[in-house]
Amino acid sequence: MIADRDSSGAGGAELGTPRTRIHARLSYDGTNFSGWARQPGRRTVQGEVEQALAIATRAPEPVQVVCAGRTDAGVHARDQHIHADLLHPPLDAPAASRLLRRLNGLLPEDVRVLALTQAAAGFDARFSVRTRSYSYRIADGRPVDPLLRSHVVGWPHVLDLAAMNAAADQLLGERDFAAFCRHRPEASTVRRLLELRWHRGDGDLAVLRVTADAFCHSMVRSLVGVLLPVGFGRREVAWPRLVADQGRRIPEVVVAPARGLVLERVEYADDLPGQARRARRVRGATGNPVG
Amino acid sequence: MIADRDSSGAGGAELGTPRTRIHARLSYDGTNFSGWARQPGRRTVQGEVEQALAIATRAPEPVQVVCAGRTDAGVHARDQHIHADLLHPPLDAPAASRLLRRLNGLLPEDVRVLALTQAAAGFDARFSVRTRSYSYRIADGRPVDPLLRSHVVGWPHVLDLAAMNAAADQLLGERDFAAFCRHRPEASTVRRLLELRWHRGDGDLAVLRVTADAFCHSMVRSLVGVLLPVGFGRREVAWPRLVADQGRRIPEVVVAPARGLVLERVEYADDLPGQARRARRVRGATGNPVG
Repeated sequence: MIADRDSSGAGGAELGTPRTRIHARLSYDGTNFSGWARQPGRRTVQGEVEQALAIATRAPEPVQVVCAGRTDAGVHARDQHIHADLLHPPLDAPAASRLLRRLNGLLPEDVRVLALTQAAAGFDARFSVRTRSYSYRIADGRPVDPLLRSHVVGWPHVLDLAAMNAAADQLLGERDFAAFCRHRPEASTVRRLLELRWHRGDGDLAVLRVTADAFCHSMVRSLVGVLLPVGFGRREVAWPRLVADQGRRIPEVVVAPARGLVLERVEYADDLPGQARRARRVRGATGNPVG
Repeated sequence: MIADRDSSGAGGAELGTPRTRIHARLSYDGTNFSGWARQPGRRTVQGEVEQALAIATRAPEPVQVVCAGRTDAGVHARDQHIHADLLHPPLDAPAASRLLRRLNGLLPEDVRVLALTQAAAGFDARFSVRTRSYSYRIADGRPVDPLLRSHVVGWPHVLDLAAMNAAADQLLGERDFAAFCRHRPEASTVRRLLELRWHRGDGDLAVLRVTADAFCHSMVRSLVGVLLPVGFGRREVAWPRLVADQGRRIPEVVVAPARGLVLERVEYADDLPGQARRARRVRGATGNPVG
C-alpha cells in the first residue's frame, strides 16, 4: 500500500498522479557492464533497468531506480534489490507478475528480474538494508572452469584457508576500514564487519563469504587482496590486522579483480522506516558505492 | 612407456623418430565453438588444441588429436579426454607439467587443459572408453541465473522430476535408440543406457545425469526432448518408451538446445587394449559423433 504523492525521485509529474513504489530483485552478470551506476554513453545495469521499466510501464517521465549495493564495473549480483517510484496505480500480484515478465522480455540476457512486488510501507532499497553479503571465488592451484570464468578468478597456488580465516577473524567487528577503502572526502569509512570467512565450495573453489552493514568502495576486493598473501605463505597471519590498524591505504595491498565478486544477499530490517532513518543519519545522503 | 614407432595418426614423419602418446583432460565452454571436430574456416575445439599442441611442441608436422566424445556446436565439456601422438621423446612428470602450462598459456580462456601425462600403454582416448556421462541443466519455472547462462537452459514451467524419472527408467538398458539418433547410413544405433536420472542440484536446477557406453548423434538432446513433455504434464509417463519402440525419429520429439549439455565424465576400462578392440569391433572405425 505505497502510493505516496510527493516522493523522492523523478520530478515533472502532475500533482495528484498516484505513485507506486515497486521492490524488485535482480541478478546480473557484470562482465559486459560499466558497473551499476548510470553513466552517459556507457552500458550500465541501472541504465538498462531504468530503460526497460520506462518502456514496460509507458512512463511519461524518466524512471529512477535505487539499489541496495552499487556494484563496480565487472562485479556481479545474484540478489540485488531495487526500488523505483512509478507513476502507476497500485500493483496487485497478477499485475506485478505481468510487469516482471514484460521486463524480462525487454532486458538483455545478462540481467534478470527474479521477483517483483509493490514495496512494503517504508521500504527503501538502499537505506532499509540491515546487511549486505558478497562472495569472492578463486580456483586455486588449478585452471578456472571455462563455464564459470565469468565469476571465478584463477590463482596459481593452493591457498591455506585456515591461515586466511585466522587472519580474517582479527578484522571482524566495528572499525575504521580506511586502509581498504578508496578515499572519498567527508565519507566515513567505519563499518561493522559481521562475517569474513573462506570455505571450500562450488566444486572445491576457495569461496569467501563476507557480510557487513555496508561496504565502502573497493573494500571487499581489498580484503581479498590483504588475505591472499597469507593464504600462500608470503605474509604472516597477523599482517592483515596490522594493515587495518594503519588506517590508510598502502601499496602492498592489491585490489583483487572485479570478476570474482558477487553480491549474494541483502537483508532488510523488520522496522523499515526506523532502519532507513538510522542509515541516512550514519552515512549521509550520498553514501558510498560498494564492491 | 609409450613410444611406438609406427602408430596411427599423422604421416610424414621420418622413420625412426620416436613418437610419444600423450593423454590429456580438457574442459571447455562450447558457446563460441562450432563444436569439437576440426572444420576449415571454423573455430573448433579440436582446431585450437591441435594448433596449441603443434606450437608448444614445435611439431614438424600437423598434430592430430583424438577425443573421447565429439561434442556438437554449443555443447560443453568439463572432462573431455584426448590423446595425440607427438614426435617427441617420452614425457616424464616435470616435462608433462611444463607442457600443460605452456598449452594453457597458448590456448584461449574458453579451453583449459586440466591434466596431461604420457598415456598408459594401449590407451586410446576414444576406443578405450567404457562409459561417457553427460549432464543437462534446466532452470525451470524461473529465470536463468545470468552467471550460468552459458550452460543452463530456461523453461517456463516447474518440472515434475519424479514423473520424468519414471519415464526415464523405461529407457534404460541395451536397445536400439534410432528414435533419438540422427540417421547415418550403416551406423548402428544400438547403445547401452546405464543411467538417465533427473535430480535437483546446483542451486535447485533440474539436472539430468545420463551415462551410456556411447551416444549417437543428438541422442542426449533428444532424450531431454522426449522427457520434457512428461515433466510438465503434456505427455504420459509411458510416452517416451512408446517413442523409443517406434525405432525411427518422429517430429514430436524436439531436440533440446545444445547449450544445456555438458560432457561431465569419461570412464576408461582397466584392460585398455582389450576395450579398444571391442569398441572398434562394435562401432566400426568411423564411429559416431556424440551429443
